[in-house]
Amino acid sequence: MQDNKFPPDVWSIIENKYQPEDLEKNASIFFIGNGYLGMRGGLAETTGGSLDSHKGTFINGFYETGPQLYAESAYGFPEERQVMLNLPDSTEIRIYLDDEPFCLDNGRILEYERSLMMKEGLLSRELLWESPEGRRMRFRSIRCVSFSRQHLALISCSISEVTGARRIRMISSCYTGTVSHKNRKSDPRTGAGFVHLPLECVDKKIVGGRAALYQRTVNSALSLGTGVSNIPLQGLRQISAEVHQDRIDFTFEGDLSDERTFKLDKYIAYYSSIEAHSGDIAELVSSELSRAENDGGEEILREQREHMKRFWDTADVVIDGEDFQQQGIRYNIFALYQSAGRDGRRNIAAKGLSGEGYEGHYFWDTEIYVIPFFTYNFPEIARELLQYRYSILDQARKRAEVLSEKGALFPWRTINGVEASAYFPAGTAQYHINADIAYGIQQYTSSSGDFDFLKSSGAEILVETSRLWMSLGFFGKEDGRFRINSVTGPDEYTAIVNNNYFTNIMAANNLEYSCDVINGLRTEDPAWYAAFSIRLGLAEDEPELWRKAAELMYLPYDAELAVHSQDDSFMQKELWDFTGTPPEKYPLLLHYHPLVIYRHQVLKQPDVVLANFLLSGRFTRIQKMRDFDYYNPLTTGDSSLSPCIQSIMASELGRHSEAYDYFVKTVRMDLDDINLNVADGVHIAAMGGSWLSIIYGFAGLRESGGILSFDPRLPDAWNGLEFRILSRGSVLQVEMSRKKAVYTLVSGDELILKHRGIEHRVKIGSSLVCSTVPRLRAVIFDLDGVITDSAEYHYLAWKKLAVEEGFSFSREINEKLRGIGRLESLEIILEFSGISLPKAEKERLAGIKNNYYRELISRMSPRDILSGINDFIGELKSDNIKIALASASKNAPEVIEGLGLSDSFDIIIDAASLEKGKPDPEIFVLAAEKLGFSPSDCAGVEDAEAGVSALKAAGIFSVGIGPAASGADWVLGSTDELDYALLRKKLKRT
Amino acid sequence: MQDNKFPPDVWSIIENKYQPEDLEKNASIFFIGNGYLGMRGGLAETTGGSLDSHKGTFINGFYETGPQLYAESAYGFPEERQVMLNLPDSTEIRIYLDDEPFCLDNGRILEYERSLMMKEGLLSRELLWESPEGRRMRFRSIRCVSFSRQHLALISCSISEVTGARRIRMISSCYTGTVSHKNRKSDPRTGAGFVHLPLECVDKKIVGGRAALYQRTVNSALSLGTGVSNIPLQGLRQISAEVHQDRIDFTFEGDLSDERTFKLDKYIAYYSSIEAHSGDIAELVSSELSRAENDGGEEILREQREHMKRFWDTADVVIDGEDFQQQGIRYNIFALYQSAGRDGRRNIAAKGLSGEGYEGHYFWDTEIYVIPFFTYNFPEIARELLQYRYSILDQARKRAEVLSEKGALFPWRTINGVEASAYFPAGTAQYHINADIAYGIQQYTSSSGDFDFLKSSGAEILVETSRLWMSLGFFGKEDGRFRINSVTGPDEYTAIVNNNYFTNIMAANNLEYSCDVINGLRTEDPAWYAAFSIRLGLAEDEPELWRKAAELMYLPYDAELAVHSQDDSFMQKELWDFTGTPPEKYPLLLHYHPLVIYRHQVLKQPDVVLANFLLSGRFTRIQKMRDFDYYNPLTTGDSSLSPCIQSIMASELGRHSEAYDYFVKTVRMDLDDINLNVADGVHIAAMGGSWLSIIYGFAGLRESGGILSFDPRLPDAWNGLEFRILSRGSVLQVEMSRKKAVYTLVSGDELILKHRGIEHRVKIGSSLVCSTVPRLRAVIFDLDGVITDSAEYHYLAWKKLAVEEGFSFSREINEKLRGIGRLESLEIILEFSGISLPKAEKERLAGIKNNYYRELISRMSPRDILSGINDFIGELKSDNIKIALASASKNAPEVIEGLGLSDSFDIIIDAASLEKGKPDPEIFVLAAEKLGFSPSDCAGVEDAEAGVSALKAAGIFSVGIGPAASGADWVLGSTDELDYALLRKKLKRT
Repeated sequence: MQDNKFPPDVWSIIENKYQPEDLEKNASIFFIGNGYLGMRGGLAETTGGSLDSHKGTFINGFYETGPQLYAESAYGFPEERQVMLNLPDSTEIRIYLDDEPFCLDNGRILEYERSLMMKEGLLSRELLWESPEGRRMRFRSIRCVSFSRQHLALISCSISEVTGARRIRMISSCYTGTVSHKNRKSDPRTGAGFVHLPLECVDKKIVGGRAALYQRTVNSALSLGTGVSNIPLQGLRQISAEVHQDRIDFTFEGDLSDERTFKLDKYIAYYSSIEAHSGDIAELVSSELSRAENDGGEEILREQREHMKRFWDTADVVIDGEDFQQQGIRYNIFALYQSAGRDGRRNIAAKGLSGEGYEGHYFWDTEIYVIPFFTYNFPEIARELLQYRYSILDQARKRAEVLSEKGALFPWRTINGVEASAYFPAGTAQYHINADIAYGIQQYTSSSGDFDFLKSSGAEILVETSRLWMSLGFFGKEDGRFRINSVTGPDEYTAIVNNNYFTNIMAANNLEYSCDVINGLRTEDPAWYAAFSIRLGLAEDEPELWRKAAELMYLPYDAELAVHSQDDSFMQKELWDFTGTPPEKYPLLLHYHPLVIYRHQVLKQPDVVLANFLLSGRFTRIQKMRDFDYYNPLTTGDSSLSPCIQSIMASELGRHSEAYDYFVKTVRMDLDDINLNVADGVHIAAMGGSWLSIIYGFAGLRESGGILSFDPRLPDAWNGLEFRILSRGSVLQVEMSRKKAVYTLVSGDELILKHRGIEHRVKIGSSLVCSTVPRLRAVIFDLDGVITDSAEYHYLAWKKLAVEEGFSFSREINEKLRGIGRLESLEIILEFSGISLPKAEKERLAGIKNNYYRELISRMSPRDILSGINDFIGELKSDNIKIALASASKNAPEVIEGLGLSDSFDIIIDAASLEKGKPDPEIFVLAAEKLGFSPSDCAGVEDAEAGVSALKAAGIFSVGIGPAASGADWVLGSTDELDYALLRKKLKRT
Repeated sequence: MQDNKFPPDVWSIIENKYQPEDLEKNASIFFIGNGYLGMRGGLAETTGGSLDSHKGTFINGFYETGPQLYAESAYGFPEERQVMLNLPDSTEIRIYLDDEPFCLDNGRILEYERSLMMKEGLLSRELLWESPEGRRMRFRSIRCVSFSRQHLALISCSISEVTGARRIRMISSCYTGTVSHKNRKSDPRTGAGFVHLPLECVDKKIVGGRAALYQRTVNSALSLGTGVSNIPLQGLRQISAEVHQDRIDFTFEGDLSDERTFKLDKYIAYYSSIEAHSGDIAELVSSELSRAENDGGEEILREQREHMKRFWDTADVVIDGEDFQQQGIRYNIFALYQSAGRDGRRNIAAKGLSGEGYEGHYFWDTEIYVIPFFTYNFPEIARELLQYRYSILDQARKRAEVLSEKGALFPWRTINGVEASAYFPAGTAQYHINADIAYGIQQYTSSSGDFDFLKSSGAEILVETSRLWMSLGFFGKEDGRFRINSVTGPDEYTAIVNNNYFTNIMAANNLEYSCDVINGLRTEDPAWYAAFSIRLGLAEDEPELWRKAAELMYLPYDAELAVHSQDDSFMQKELWDFTGTPPEKYPLLLHYHPLVIYRHQVLKQPDVVLANFLLSGRFTRIQKMRDFDYYNPLTTGDSSLSPCIQSIMASELGRHSEAYDYFVKTVRMDLDDINLNVADGVHIAAMGGSWLSIIYGFAGLRESGGILSFDPRLPDAWNGLEFRILSRGSVLQVEMSRKKAVYTLVSGDELILKHRGIEHRVKIGSSLVCSTVPRLRAVIFDLDGVITDSAEYHYLAWKKLAVEEGFSFSREINEKLRGIGRLESLEIILEFSGISLPKAEKERLAGIKNNYYRELISRMSPRDILSGINDFIGELKSDNIKIALASASKNAPEVIEGLGLSDSFDIIIDAASLEKGKPDPEIFVLAAEKLGFSPSDCAGVEDAEAGVSALKAAGIFSVGIGPAASGADWVLGSTDELDYALLRKKLKRT
C-alpha cells in the first residue's frame, strides 16, 4: 500500500503517475459530486462501457428495480431489487492530433498529474503527451459538479503546446444506451447487474445546438432528462453534431496554423422525475444549460470555490502533526459532503456517489456514522437525511405488516423505502436500524435544538418504531423482563440470536425517548397532540407502556466475567482460533461459511462496544473498560465500520496508542485502499467514523441536553487539533494543543461547556483557555499500610483465634496475608496447620476473627494514623484537592471513624458494591468517576502490588509506599515522604 | 376432501369419474415405477408438455445441474442446482375415429374407470366414449413398469365396441425434446426449472422398426438411450414411421370392416450412463426390447403379477377394521417399493418417482422414515439405500472441508452427492443428517444381522461422521460438556440454534455406536482393522474420544418443567398465538416470515419427541410423557413427517385415541391430498411413517440386539392386524386381535421375542399365542391411608410441636394436611395461628416435627397395618403378582420396616429421586417401569385425590379407598374390601 500512497498534500489528492492498474480504484477516489449528482473519476478520453476503466455517473436515489431471485424463497422475502443506476456517460471527450487518437495507453506520457483539489471542490488533470508517431500536446481539464447548481456539471478543457500536428479534433459525446454495471459475483458486498436493460431511451435529439436526451427506467418508471452543451472557447470550430445509435457526438476542430491553444467547455445538466414533474424536465434542463452558458465556466468555477470556502470555514478539521492524516480527514469529510442528499428525498449511500458497491443503498450508516458530522456542521443537511426516513415511513409500515408486526419496520437497505435486503439473517433481522433512526433523531434534535422537527416528522417515526419494538418483543413469563428474540445485531458475524445487547439497549433508548418526547409534546402543545394522537390512533397509555418495556428491558450480562454478553448465547460459544487463522483468510466472510463464523466467538464489529459509545451515559467507566477488553481481542476488523468506534472507546478509556492505531486504519481507509475494495466505491460510514474518532475520540466531545463536554486526549504524534462545532445555533471554535484547549465562540449565544468534567461559560469576545495537561484534582488512598497500619490488628485478631482453636500462627504467616481477603487468609493459616475444614465452619471462624478485629479497631484513635498522612491530607485539603478512600475492607468506615478522619474524605467507596477486587481497577475507576474527574487528573496511594496494578489499569498516577509497591509511578519509602507539591509536578509531567 | 375419496377398495385405487381438476393430483397418485423408472399417471392420449396434464417420466437419479443463483451469495453456498429430469414423454398414443380425435374433454364419457391395481402392480384404464360427432369406442389400456425388467415399461391397449366410424387410427409417439418442468415459484417445496434446455438430442432415428433416441444432459454429461417398439397385435397395420422435429411417430390403422377389436402393445426401454457404459447403451436398449418382443406382453404382465405376489406375501399389512386405512397402507408401501433405488447408485426421492417436488432430491427421510420398512421386509433394498450413502462419501468429505470441518458432512439434499440445499438455515445447518445416516446403519445391521456391511461400507461412514461431530462441537470450557452450536434440528420452525436436543443426542448415539463398532471390529478382525485404520488414518485413541464426547454430550433440559428443551434458547421464546392463528394461515411457512416463526415456540415437527422414539431406550417413560405433553400442543402439523411420529409416541404413552387421529392423517395423506400438494408428488416419508405408525405404534415393535419386542395396542376401530417381519433371516408372521397376539415363525431360525415385556421363544411348527388383554401383573400401593394410617402419627407429632411452640392445632386443622408435604403443612398450621416466620425457622420447626414423627413411627408394628391389607397382599403374592410401594413420604422405608412388610414389597420407589410429586404420574409410571410391566397391566391403590389423578395420568387402573378417592376406576369404602379376584376381572375389562 505504501507505494500507492498519494503525496501528503493536505489540500489535494494527487495522482502523479498514470498506472492502468489503479484506474478502477482511483475512479472511486477521484469521484466528484454534490449530493444529487455524482461522477466517478473515469478518464474522459476513453470510451464508456469499458470495464477496464469503469465510468459512472449517478443521480442519488435514481434507481431501477428488478425481480429479486432466490435459490429458495420464503414468505416475506423482498421481491424487488433496487439498484442505483449507472447513467450513460456524458463526460467523454476524445481527442485526435491529426488522425492520431489521444490515448494514455499508447505513446509516451511526459508529464502527468491528476488532482482532486479539495479546497476548490474541483478535479483537475494536466498532462504532456507524445503520440506513437511523435505528435505532442499538453492537455488540461477541470471537472466540476456544482454545489450551488445541483443539476449541473462542467468539464472545462484545453489543449496547448501542440507539436508535430497540423490539426486537432475533439469529439464530445453523450451516450444514450444502458451502461453495464459492475458485477463481481463472488463478493456479496458489490452490486449486481440486471438481466433487462434498465434504462429506455425515449427520445434523443439535438435541439438548439445541444444534445437532449430523455430516458425512462423500465420497472421503476422514473424519467430522466440529460442535456449537454459544448461551447468552443478558443481555436475550435464545430464540424458536426450527429445523433448515433448509442450516442450523440459533437465534433470540433482547430488548426495549428491559426492557434496554439484550444479550449472547450462542456456543460452537462440532469433532471429526474424524483424531484421534478416529468413534463417539466425538458424545460428545466434547458434553462439550467442556458444559465450556465450565460454565466460561463469561469463564473461556475468561482461559485464553486466560494462555496467550498464556506464549507471549509465551517467543517474543516485541522490536524497539526501528520499530513497524511490531515489529507485523509479532509478527503473524508469532503466525500461526505459530496454524497449526502439534501432534499429529503434521498439519503447517503454506503459508497456515496463514488461507485456501485452495495447498489447505492442507504443503511444505518447514515444515522450512526454520518449524521453527527452534519449535525455539528450543516444541521440543515442532517435534517434532510432524517426527513428522508420520514418520507419512507409508509413503506416501513407496510413492511411491519408483512413481518406480522405493528408500527413501522424500516428497511435494512433500500433506495425507495422498500426493503431490498436479500439475505435476511444479515438484513431484515437487523431490526436495530429502527432504534438507530430514533437515536439519530434524538442526537440531531438535542444538538441542533431543532425541536420543531419532532412535531413535523420525528414524533411519528418515534411512535411507529416504538410500536414495532412492543410487538417484536414480549414480557417474559418468568421474570417479566422485556425480551427481543431472533434478531441480528450490527455484528454480522453472529446472526439470529436472542436478546442482542446492542439491539435491546438501543430499543430501550428508543422506547424511553419516544415516551419522553410524546409526554413532552402533549404538555407543550395539547392541540398538536390531540390531532397527532387521533391520526396515529395513539392510546393514552401507550407511551407509558413503552417506558415500562424500556425499564424492564432484558440486557444480557455475564456475571462471572462482569461483561455484557453480546446476546443470550454468545458467551457459550467456542472461541475462534485466531492463531490458526492466516492473514489471507481475512475477511472471514469470504473464506468461511456463515455457519462456521456464527458458531464462534468472533466479531465483524464489536456491537457491545458501540453501545458503550452511543449510550455512553448509561455505562460506568469500569463497565466500558471490561466490555472493551473482552470484545476487542475478538474483533477481526473485517468491517470498515469497526476501527473508528474502537478508536473512540480506546481514547475514552485511556488506551491512547490503541486509539491512534485504530484511527490510522480509519482515516485513510480509502486513500490507502486498506480493504482492497475501493474500486467499488469509498466507505462512507468509515469516513464519517474517522470524523467521530477525532471529535468524540481525541477531542472527547459528548453532548447532553445541548451542553457540550470535551475531554481532549490528542495522540502523541499530534501537536494540535482545530475544528468548529455548531451547537444550537452557536458556532464554537475549538483549538487543542498538547497543553491547552482554547474554546472561542465565533457566533451565537453564550454556551455552557464542560472541559474535563468542569463546567465553563463561553461568551463572544473572549476565549476560554483550559489546560489539557493532567492536573491533580483528587488523591485516592488505600487504607491499610497507607493511612494506618491495621496489619497489626489483623495479626492480633488472627493470633487470638489461632490460640483458641489451636492452630499454629506466627508473624511470618501473617506477612503472607497482606492484601488477602478474610476467608482466603484463614485458608492459608489452616494450610500451615495441615487442617481441612468444611466451608460453613471456615465461615464461622472467619466471622469470629472479624469480630475480634472489629473489637480491636474500635479502639483505634488518631494516634494510629501513619506518620506524614495528616500533613499530606492537610496540604491537599488546603488546595481543594478531593480525597477518596478506596479500600477493599468492609470495615473501612469504622477504621476511618476511629482514626477521626471521617470528615477528611470526600467519598469512601463501598467495598461491598464491587464486582471484582484489586488488581482489578474497578475500585479506583469508580472513585475517580464518583468524584467526577478524569483518571489522569487523579493520583492513588498504595502499599501493595495488587493495588498498584489496579491503579495502572485504571489510568491513575500511582504513588507506592514501601517495597511491595515498587512498580508504582512514584515510589516512596514511607508515608512520611508524601509531598503535595512534588506530586503535582510528577503528575503534570505524565 | 371427502368428495375426492377413492372408493374403499382394499386392493385398488379407483378413479371412476373423469375430472380435469384432478388430473394433476391423480397423475401423482397413479404413478407407476420400479425404483429405477417411474411414470406419472398422465393420460396417454393427450400431448406431452401441456401443463394441464403434466406428464412425467423419471429415471431415479438421472439429473441435470445448473448454476445455483443467489440473491446474495456467501462463501460455501452450493454453486450447483440438481434436478431429476422429467424425460421426454414416450407414453403418448393418440386415437382417431375416422378423423375425429379421441379426447376426454370433448364428447361424452359413458363409462369410465382408471384403477391402480396394487395386487398386480399395474395401472389400468377402461372407458366408453362417444365423440362430439357421435362415434363411439371402448378403450382399454394396461400400463406396466416391470419390476423384473428394471429398464422396461409396457403399455398394452385395445379399442373395441366401435360404432359410427369406419376406420380407427392410432399414433404412438415418443418425444425427443426437452420437457418443461413444473415450477411454482411461491412454494419452496416444489421444484424449479432451468434457464437452459437440459437435455440435448444426440441422435433420433428409426432402426429395425423401432424408435431409437439418444440424449445427453448438457451440464451433468449423462447419456440416455430410449427405445420404443410398437407391436400391433390385432386389427392394426402400420401406416408410417416418421421422425419429426420433436418426436417420432408410428401410425397404425384398422378398418372396422375387417375387425371389431384393435390391439397395440408399446414397449419402452431406457438405459442411462449411470448404470451402463455410454457405448453399450444402444445395444442394451435394443436387447431389452428384443427380449420383450419375444416374450410378449402377456408374459411381462404375468411376471409382474408373480413378482407382486411375492411382494405382498412379504410386505402386506392387513388391517381388519377400516377399509380406507387398509387401502391407504397398501398404497403407501406399494409406493415405497415402486420408488426405492435398488443398485446402490440411487436412493429414494422425497416424492419417490411420482413427481418433481423437491427436485427429486434425497433427504434424511430415507434413513429415518423409509429404511425400517425395507429392513424388515426387503433388507437387500435397505442395504442398497445405505450403500448409496457410501457411494457419495467422497463428496461428503469435500463438503466437510468447505465447511472447515473434519470427516464427512453429508448433504442435506442431493442427487449426485453434492450439497444442493440453497437455504442453509434449513439445509446445511441440519447437520443431524449425519447422525441419521449412522442411525440407519445401526438399525439396519442390528435388525438384519448383516454385519458384513459394516466392514465393507458402514464403518467408514461411522468414522467420518464421528470426525465431523468432533470438529463441529467442542468441550465447553466451564463444565467440560460437549456442545454443538449453530445448527438446525429437524424442526425447521426453529433455525441456527445452540445444542439442538435432537442433534446432540443423535450425535451422541452416532459417536458411541461408532466407537463400539470400531472397537468390536478391531477385536473381531485385526487384519481388517489394521488395513482400515491405516487407510483412514484412524488414530488409536480416536474412538475413545468419541465415546468421551458422547458421554459428556450436553443435552438441554428445563429442570422446572422437567422437559427436554428443544435447544438452549427454546424455552425462553415467546409462545405462538395459536388461538389467534386462523386455519388459512397454515402452513405457517407460507404465511409468516421465517424470523417471525423462528422467534416463537412453535413447531413444524416435534424433534425432541422424535428423539424419544428413535432412541427409545435412552428415556424413561415419564420423560417421554413430559416431552410429548410439552411439545405436542406446540406442533402445527405443517410437516408431513410429523403426525406418524406423534402417533407412535401417543401409542406408546397410552394416548390411544390421539395415536389413532394422527395415524389417520398419515395413512391417507396422499390419497386424500390432506396437504393439498399431491400434484407435486406423493409424500414418501409420510408413507414410510404410516408403516412405522402401525408397526412401532399399534404393534409396539422395538428391536434391540436382534431381539424383537411387541406391545400391541390396536386402535378401538380395528379388530385385527396382520403383518410379517423379517429379522436376521427369520420370517415372523404376526397376527394381532383385540384379545390376543399370535406369533408364527414362517421360516428361519428360532426367535426370541418379547410380548408386553415378557420374553418368549418362537419355533417353527407352533405358534406363540399371547393375550393382549390387560392382565394384572403388579399392584402399586400408596402408603398413608392404604397400608397404614400414619395420619394419626402426623397428628401427634404436629400436636407435640404446637404445644411446645404455642401454636393452636386441632384435629380439624390436621384434616387439612392430608397429602400435603411437611413444610406446606407447617405453613397451614402457622396461618391458623396468624404467625409468620422466616424460612430458616420454618425449616427448623419442620425438622423438629419430623424427628417427633420418626420417633413415633419407629414404634410402629404389624398391628398398625390396616385391616384387609395383609390378606390382600397374601393373595397377590400367592399368584406371583408383584407389589410396589409408591409413597411420597421419605420415611416410607422406616414405616414399612416397622410394619414388618419389608419383604412383601418387590420395590419401594425412592421419593427423593422424584422430580414431581402427585398428582404428577411420575411415581407410578416409574414403579411400573421398574417392575418391567406395561401400566395397563398394573393397578394402583390410593386414598387421596392427587394419587388417583396420578394413577390415571399414568394409565394405571386405580383403586380408590374412601371418599377422597371417589374418582378412581374402582372405589372401595375401606381396605377391607380389597379383593384380588375381583380386581383381576375389573382390570381385564378395561
